Amino acid sequence: MQRKIEVCLTPALIDLYAIENSIVVVIDILRATSSIVYGIDNGAQAIIPVAQVEECLNYADKGYLLAAERNGEVVEGYDFGNSPFSYTAEKVAGKTIVLTTTNGTKALHLARKRASQVVIGAFLNLEALCAWLKTQEKDVLLLCAGWKDQFNLEDTIFAGAVVNQLRSGFTHYDDASVAAEDLYLLAKDDLRAYIHKSSHSHRMVALNIEEDVKFCLQTNICQTIPVLEGDQLVALKTGL
Amino acid sequence: MQRKIEVCLTPALIDLYAIENSIVVVIDILRATSSIVYGIDNGAQAIIPVAQVEECLNYADKGYLLAAERNGEVVEGYDFGNSPFSYTAEKVAGKTIVLTTTNGTKALHLARKRASQVVIGAFLNLEALCAWLKTQEKDVLLLCAGWKDQFNLEDTIFAGAVVNQLRSGFTHYDDASVAAEDLYLLAKDDLRAYIHKSSHSHRMVALNIEEDVKFCLQTNICQTIPVLEGDQLVALKTGL
Repeated sequence: MQRKIEVCLTPALIDLYAIENSIVVVIDILRATSSIVYGIDNGAQAIIPVAQVEECLNYADKGYLLAAERNGEVVEGYDFGNSPFSYTAEKVAGKTIVLTTTNGTKALHLARKRASQVVIGAFLNLEALCAWLKTQEKDVLLLCAGWKDQFNLEDTIFAGAVVNQLRSGFTHYDDASVAAEDLYLLAKDDLRAYIHKSSHSHRMVALNIEEDVKFCLQTNICQTIPVLEGDQLVALKTGL
Repeated sequence: MQRKIEVCLTPALIDLYAIENSIVVVIDILRATSSIVYGIDNGAQAIIPVAQVEECLNYADKGYLLAAERNGEVVEGYDFGNSPFSYTAEKVAGKTIVLTTTNGTKALHLARKRASQVVIGAFLNLEALCAWLKTQEKDVLLLCAGWKDQFNLEDTIFAGAVVNQLRSGFTHYDDASVAAEDLYLLAKDDLRAYIHKSSHSHRMVALNIEEDVKFCLQTNICQTIPVLEGDQLVALKTGL
């Protein structure tokens, strides 16, 4: 079967891709998709991504946890933001979380408009994600959330890690896949050192969340693949 | 002085950059900006970039050469397209050329709307371009023309070559600069082999223009920097 893998380097470019029959993997390593993977893996019942901070309030008084991050910080008055340490089993098991973030939830909303299926990727579930993607007879678009529509290193490197695992099973790939894979191969022996070349990581240091960065760069501590069903992210039943 | 260098990976992202006080370097290695550099270096009086094929016709009967390329091929009825071999001294010295290409002239038109100054870069004039940029007290945006608004390898690698020469003199750079420079460092020992990983190079092989590719990957055979003055590209007087 002819299959195509492509990397969309920022959400601003998504209209260039025909994704009606594709699986779109949304990637926002620091920190939205890492925390979503971790939260669902820790037994959160669902995570509802919303684009605007104000939309979270529509879900108040329903017993949901409300999570909002803007520019790397928790929005005042919300339960938490997108630090993975807020998504432990103790805090989220059995709960539904309404979440809005600067970049990740925006990418999700763009993808869901047209994609055949939308799943969530992070280093935390890299192996599980790739194992499942290999079994699907679909084209794959790796959608980097970036930073305010700009390219960023950490999402691109993760996309490259996925390309690196999947490419042999795909007949077509684009230039962005080649670049992402090569950057991943440069970075993989010390992801943290490489990510520190990133402007976003300077923001992270300024925000004093170096522990979050370290956490998000762990590989394969989660087996769960969050998938969008209706307006909710839930655990995909892979049958693997 | 605080100076910033950034890489805009495709023209579709240009609105994200504040370029009102910047020098924008337009890059379309295969083949528009390579041919523009070569043509001006060979004594073409001016090259007038236009966005649409039909616009070229407005310049008919003025004694100009009319050049039009779409999807890698010369448009029927035009003098030539964007092969560098059409821009030799014999063919263009003293002449004015009206040129439209699939990607390069579009990027030029987007840049000129807002940029402080627009110049043309290619491997052919890499050293001359970098030497001049170092003497300017301006921010620099390296604008990759890409392929129909998508990322491509060859333009990004050239941007990385410029970053590699300039970075020590700049205080700020973005993630795309880091990535472009690292890809350039991977590619530099054999640019052609690396470019062959590119989907665009497959198009080039299909178009039977491998000699053009080889030509465009030569470094520093031209000393000229084309600059946009009004609606014309002419040789920049650098005083270097």
